Amino acid sequence: MTQPDGVPASATDLGEALSSLSEHWLPKVVARMNDYEVKVVKVRGEFTWHSHVDTDELFFVLSGDLMIQLRDGDVLVRPGQMFVVPRGVEHCPKADREVHAMLVEPAGVVNTGDAGGPFTVEPL
Amino acid sequence: MTQPDGVPASATDLGEALSSLSEHWLPKVVARMNDYEVKVVKVRGEFTWHSHVDTDELFFVLSGDLMIQLRDGDVLVRPGQMFVVPRGVEHCPKADREVHAMLVEPAGVVNTGDAGGPFTVEPL
Repeated sequence: MTQPDGVPASATDLGEALSSLSEHWLPKVVARMNDYEVKVVKVRGEFTWHSHVDTDELFFVLSGDLMIQLRDGDVLVRPGQMFVVPRGVEHCPKADREVHAMLVEPAGVVNTGDAGGPFTVEPL
Repeated sequence: MTQPDGVPASATDLGEALSSLSEHWLPKVVARMNDYEVKVVKVRGEFTWHSHVDTDELFFVLSGDLMIQLRDGDVLVRPGQMFVVPRGVEHCPKADREVHAMLVEPAGVVNTGDAGGPFTVEPL
């Protein structure tokens, strides 16, 4: 099947993309939409407290229970549920058991926001 | 739990949002992220051929098999898979059996793009 420029010939399977990930907290871009990116990530343990000054960040949980810690309380996000962390709001994801999640955010967002540290992955 | 302005106190369950939908092709906004909206929709049958001149459109299938017809061929999107229709590309979703899907696109996008017709839902 031929496609116009930039149209992939098939859908992207998030399970397949996740199975290629061997490291926790290392997101993989699976799709681009306008200037946004969709990523999948495997997480376990506790991340770093951080915020993104310029953007909201969407978490959609595919499997496992993700706790998004906020300074005012925790939000539990279970499979099939989503939560949007508003820009500027400090948060720290945490998972006692492995969680598979999808993220949607603008291209170029640094995963640790303004916090830096060992989890930081610079965008390509 | 108190929250900063605009932070909901809990996650949004897509299954619950879908269960409140009684009509096919009528999307429901479940989350906002920057100037984008996340919607859920139940679809069955064939939609309308249309395109969105100004934006890509992301489809993520939660249940059922969604066929996204393009002028150059069809893309089958199964549960756990996503497909981004690039801006300006004509498409027509189709589902022989009911499909539950999530959409991500900028706020204000008209579902039938430039085509109009009975399926059109004007944004709020």
